[in-house]
Amino acid sequence: MAVVDRTTQRADPSHVRALATFSVATIHEAQDRAGLMQARLRPLVRGRRIAGTALTCEVTPGDNSSIHVAGDVARAGDFMVVAPTSPCDDGYFGELLATHMVARGVVGLVIDAGVRDVSELTAMGFAVWSSAISARGTVKETPGNVQVPLVCAGVPVTPGDVVVADDDGVVVVAREDTLDVIAECRVREAREHAQRKLLAAGESTLDLFGLRQKFLDAGLRDIAD
Amino acid sequence: MAVVDRTTQRADPSHVRALATFSVATIHEAQDRAGLMQARLRPLVRGRRIAGTALTCEVTPGDNSSIHVAGDVARAGDFMVVAPTSPCDDGYFGELLATHMVARGVVGLVIDAGVRDVSELTAMGFAVWSSAISARGTVKETPGNVQVPLVCAGVPVTPGDVVVADDDGVVVVAREDTLDVIAECRVREAREHAQRKLLAAGESTLDLFGLRQKFLDAGLRDIAD
Amino acid sequence: MAVVDRTTQRADPSHVRALATFSVATIHEAQDRAGLMQARLRPLVRGRRIAGTALTCEVTPGDNSSIHVAGDVARAGDFMVVAPTSPCDDGYFGELLATHMVARGVVGLVIDAGVRDVSELTAMGFAVWSSAISARGTVKETPGNVQVPLVCAGVPVTPGDVVVADDDGVVVVAREDTLDVIAECRVREAREHAQRKLLAAGESTLDLFGLRQKFLDAGLRDIAD
Amino acid sequence: MAVVDRTTQRADPSHVRALATFSVATIHEAQDRAGLMQARLRPLVRGRRIAGTALTCEVTPGDNSSIHVAGDVARAGDFMVVAPTSPCDDGYFGELLATHMVARGVVGLVIDAGVRDVSELTAMGFAVWSSAISARGTVKETPGNVQVPLVCAGVPVTPGDVVVADDDGVVVVAREDTLDVIAECRVREAREHAQRKLLAAGESTLDLFGLRQKFLDAGLRDIAD
Amino acid sequence: MAVVDRTTQRADPSHVRALATFSVATIHEAQDRAGLMQARLRPLVRGRRIAGTALTCEVTPGDNSSIHVAGDVARAGDFMVVAPTSPCDDGYFGELLATHMVARGVVGLVIDAGVRDVSELTAMGFAVWSSAISARGTVKETPGNVQVPLVCAGVPVTPGDVVVADDDGVVVVAREDTLDVIAECRVREAREHAQRKLLAAGESTLDLFGLRQKFLDAGLRDIAD
Amino acid sequence: MAVVDRTTQRADPSHVRALATFSVATIHEAQDRAGLMQARLRPLVRGRRIAGTALTCEVTPGDNSSIHVAGDVARAGDFMVVAPTSPCDDGYFGELLATHMVARGVVGLVIDAGVRDVSELTAMGFAVWSSAISARGTVKETPGNVQVPLVCAGVPVTPGDVVVADDDGVVVVAREDTLDVIAECRVREAREHAQRKLLAAGESTLDLFGLRQKFLDAGLRDIAD
Repeated sequence: MAVVDRTTQRADPSHVRALATFSVATIHEAQDRAGLMQARLRPLVRGRRIAGTALTCEVTPGDNSSIHVAGDVARAGDFMVVAPTSPCDDGYFGELLATHMVARGVVGLVIDAGVRDVSELTAMGFAVWSSAISARGTVKETPGNVQVPLVCAGVPVTPGDVVVADDDGVVVVAREDTLDVIAECRVREAREHAQRKLLAAGESTLDLFGLRQKFLDAGLRDIAD
Repeated sequence: MAVVDRTTQRADPSHVRALATFSVATIHEAQDRAGLMQARLRPLVRGRRIAGTALTCEVTPGDNSSIHVAGDVARAGDFMVVAPTSPCDDGYFGELLATHMVARGVVGLVIDAGVRDVSELTAMGFAVWSSAISARGTVKETPGNVQVPLVCAGVPVTPGDVVVADDDGVVVVAREDTLDVIAECRVREAREHAQRKLLAAGESTLDLFGLRQKFLDAGLRDIAD
Repeated sequence: MAVVDRTTQRADPSHVRALATFSVATIHEAQDRAGLMQARLRPLVRGRRIAGTALTCEVTPGDNSSIHVAGDVARAGDFMVVAPTSPCDDGYFGELLATHMVARGVVGLVIDAGVRDVSELTAMGFAVWSSAISARGTVKETPGNVQVPLVCAGVPVTPGDVVVADDDGVVVVAREDTLDVIAECRVREAREHAQRKLLAAGESTLDLFGLRQKFLDAGLRDIAD
Repeated sequence: MAVVDRTTQRADPSHVRALATFSVATIHEAQDRAGLMQARLRPLVRGRRIAGTALTCEVTPGDNSSIHVAGDVARAGDFMVVAPTSPCDDGYFGELLATHMVARGVVGLVIDAGVRDVSELTAMGFAVWSSAISARGTVKETPGNVQVPLVCAGVPVTPGDVVVADDDGVVVVAREDTLDVIAECRVREAREHAQRKLLAAGESTLDLFGLRQKFLDAGLRDIAD
Repeated sequence: MAVVDRTTQRADPSHVRALATFSVATIHEAQDRAGLMQARLRPLVRGRRIAGTALTCEVTPGDNSSIHVAGDVARAGDFMVVAPTSPCDDGYFGELLATHMVARGVVGLVIDAGVRDVSELTAMGFAVWSSAISARGTVKETPGNVQVPLVCAGVPVTPGDVVVADDDGVVVVAREDTLDVIAECRVREAREHAQRKLLAAGESTLDLFGLRQKFLDAGLRDIAD
Repeated sequence: MAVVDRTTQRADPSHVRALATFSVATIHEAQDRAGLMQARLRPLVRGRRIAGTALTCEVTPGDNSSIHVAGDVARAGDFMVVAPTSPCDDGYFGELLATHMVARGVVGLVIDAGVRDVSELTAMGFAVWSSAISARGTVKETPGNVQVPLVCAGVPVTPGDVVVADDDGVVVVAREDTLDVIAECRVREAREHAQRKLLAAGESTLDLFGLRQKFLDAGLRDIAD
């Protein structure tokens, strides 16, 4: 009943590279705060930003069959996205699978479940965002869907979408929106660059963002010193 | 309906500096185990101890208006304390606000909610204790109270109180209690210094703390070897 | 009504050393996925693997009496295992107790509750796996059982069993099973060593693990490109 | 930036009525275990099964603006589905809104957040599945999207889809799949009806489902008495 | 080091009775959304509203000593409020204590921890709002403060304040604010009474609350049918 | 690798009946507060007390194979105890399995996971204590151990032990301890009967339990009125 679809259109690699230059916070703002996965996804190791094309993979609790199927269809530049059908902390992914994924050019893993072999994954430099760490092994009995649209940590992901992850979390950009989002990110970065200078020089955000009168109008009472 | 009070009396800076020499665990013991915030507040980065005067700020879910108001009344040495009226993991605070706060002399942030721009905050060295990390942005519509007493992570905080935070958590010392707490901390540290030596030399805590007979009296049965 | 038993038989030290050469994930697989503690136990600091003989200790909420009793019966090579009778995040264990344990030769602490003095424990290099960090102190009124069988984070532990902990979590090996588990770990490591090479060379896990036909038989539909 | 779309095509009312005759468990099985919302959604009152067409509504934390917008586009037979952009337990919906919804023919509410006026909602007989109960009020500042596709409790919902809820939870059936799902539900119910009789007569599920040999083949060892 | 204060001034009984006629939601709105305890406090049994004067009681984890002390200072009309110094689910309170409290005229219990003897408490009709149910017993070793100000489920409570609880949760009204809150509750109830009629007759909340133009101004785009 | 053991010795039925006359709270106290499962196990329906002999059953996440195996070895008077190897909320058990269990004389189900068909189970009167409710179905691929010792919700259970469950939770009495526990329960009930009368007549628990002087000695300061 499960499907693996090998016909996925990936986002343009140059768009992926462009999106990798922006933070997750900036990208999620640039698309009207859409596409941000829930905060339980945390990086194994801080300090990296990774972008790639979504290689989607649905797993049942305690069964990592479809991760193996996904490895078989992976292409260089893919960012694996694994979502369980119900919450499960088991360690679906470890060093052997990471070795396989690196050989196939996969750039990282986002998984709303657990991973194991944390020391080895860290030593390999394989980038992981997960909701748990657990040595608990999984079975290989019931494959789920691979490279079909799914929901991961609250966000719909279509295979081939761009996934960007950093210390703040994980965001998804639809393949057809990449250019618009890149443009809007550039606008935001330029604006924030100017604002940062003014704030560093001591300006109040109330003045910079025009909030002083707005908040008084909203009923804020100022007790002067 | 919200208020910002600019008349806050801050604790004496020399008391703040003195309290900064003690650990959170010692301070909370010195005030009879009062004033310790709940354990969900964790430092963004381990290895620092920060002390400052409470700059209090109440936010509604998903709205960081009053953090902007608080920045406007901040003074050098303030430690910002942000409490939401109901639990929310959104990223209320990021790099731009931190730039502003640094310019105003704010020493750090305690927030029972989320922060974002973790990489940038880390690079800036801005000290944060939070209950979540999330790229999710907030709106600026409804200011809450600033510099009025509030409850943060289970602890009542009055503006101007001393806040101390380290790897173990966050503790609050009421402005009027600082000298008493400092004195008691000194007593405890001296006592623990002596105890540490004896324990390192192999003494049992049962003997050092006079527990051996007490526990036998309490019914402990010792099965000898 | 509580008991401290000083007659515990510890596992053979050479078996402990042998088990310390395998990862927690490998050991738990080698004993049919038994003995793995729940994922909420996390190391204070990543990057270490510790093995020792279980020194078991049951505590009531907010009372660390039996940790003091356990220190009194500790022997070199023991790995302290602390389980509360109901969930509690308080800081049962800190620097003074760690100083005591180090003097007695205890190799580390597994506690399904909180610890404090995190900076000091880290500086000392004392290895801890805990479910919480909290400065909250505990009382010393009601000792629980020491060196009797208990359940910690879902796993039954008998005093003298081998406990191994690393970045993936904590596993327990029964004293009578150590040789069998060591043998099975060796078999698994040899097999995985061979598999790792093939995967690094680009082989699919579907072929390596014989899953391709199995999944098609299970109904997986392959949409070719 | 938010949108309210008044052009939604609702599922055929006769299909909704047909689906209302099946349990949530049966419907989710009939569509290959897809479409089931996460288990945190619970009915305010047990013992009812409700079906209707999805009236979707995205809210920001602590702001129920778009529920008011949704009420304005509601039609008889709609089942309101409210999803927050980040987790929030506030009471977004109470007696006044329920009065409004009843007047518009809305059959019930599914909300991955909090509701209030529980006594009044119960007295009115208004059917609610929520993830929280809280008296905490919300503001009306920032409308989110209404009648656009969203994700609620892990499940993608398109406006006009069929939503069915009972004591076991909430399931969504895509508008284009209703007839297929109804047919499959009928097959399953007939089969289970026959199975129930055999089980009530004492047959083993191992025999009824053909599991006895399968499990022995999978390595189950039977220790006979 | 703990204190029991027998000099508490209770709120006027007629004010308590007046507040008991309003819902928790209405009261919390009437005091600008302040005073509402966190949503984890749930009634043992639905369908009751109880009001009384706060009899405050701080407990350490797993120790109900101060509930016994509080019983000794209880007066008719008191509503017991129990807060643990750190989270604990143990069953601090059961049938024997309830028998005692009823004899002393205590009207109910709010406890941010566990209770036991649920069947017996229900049969007695003793009203309880708790965050857990657990048969786990507690010790009687270390009394905490009784009748001093504390924080319960996020809300500061001063002994003698009015506590009101219903199916939506628990709210606290400061003794000095009771008349103002009662007046504001009456205004709100009258206004809601009028609104309810209009909504039942089919009016849109967008019109009734003047939101239609406000939301268009805020950028809501209306896709007409 | 899994085992089903058909040779289990059940506890004496007359002991089971005797234990069914005591509450879970009383039984757990009578065995020194041991044997009580964690508080997340809640009854589907309040108001019943059930006792039976443990029919133990270990399941992997999302796989209910061993419940089917357990049904095959069930005997009249058994109380099924199901523990997952890692946390999972799926609905492992529903109406068809309950029909089967009733036919075999099983008196109820304790499961540290989810159940479904809640309406049907309620209508049948089948007694369930579970940690979740979910319509999510499970697979039947990998049987776990049946009728071997396991840990359920923190408590070790040996097949044939007595399990008692009521509104306060679930407790386990080892088969060899039943007579001792029954005797101790009788002593406690008699004592509490006498205490209840005195408390109803207005006596303070401080006097009844001899706590008044003890607490003053422990440092309680009494501020008289």
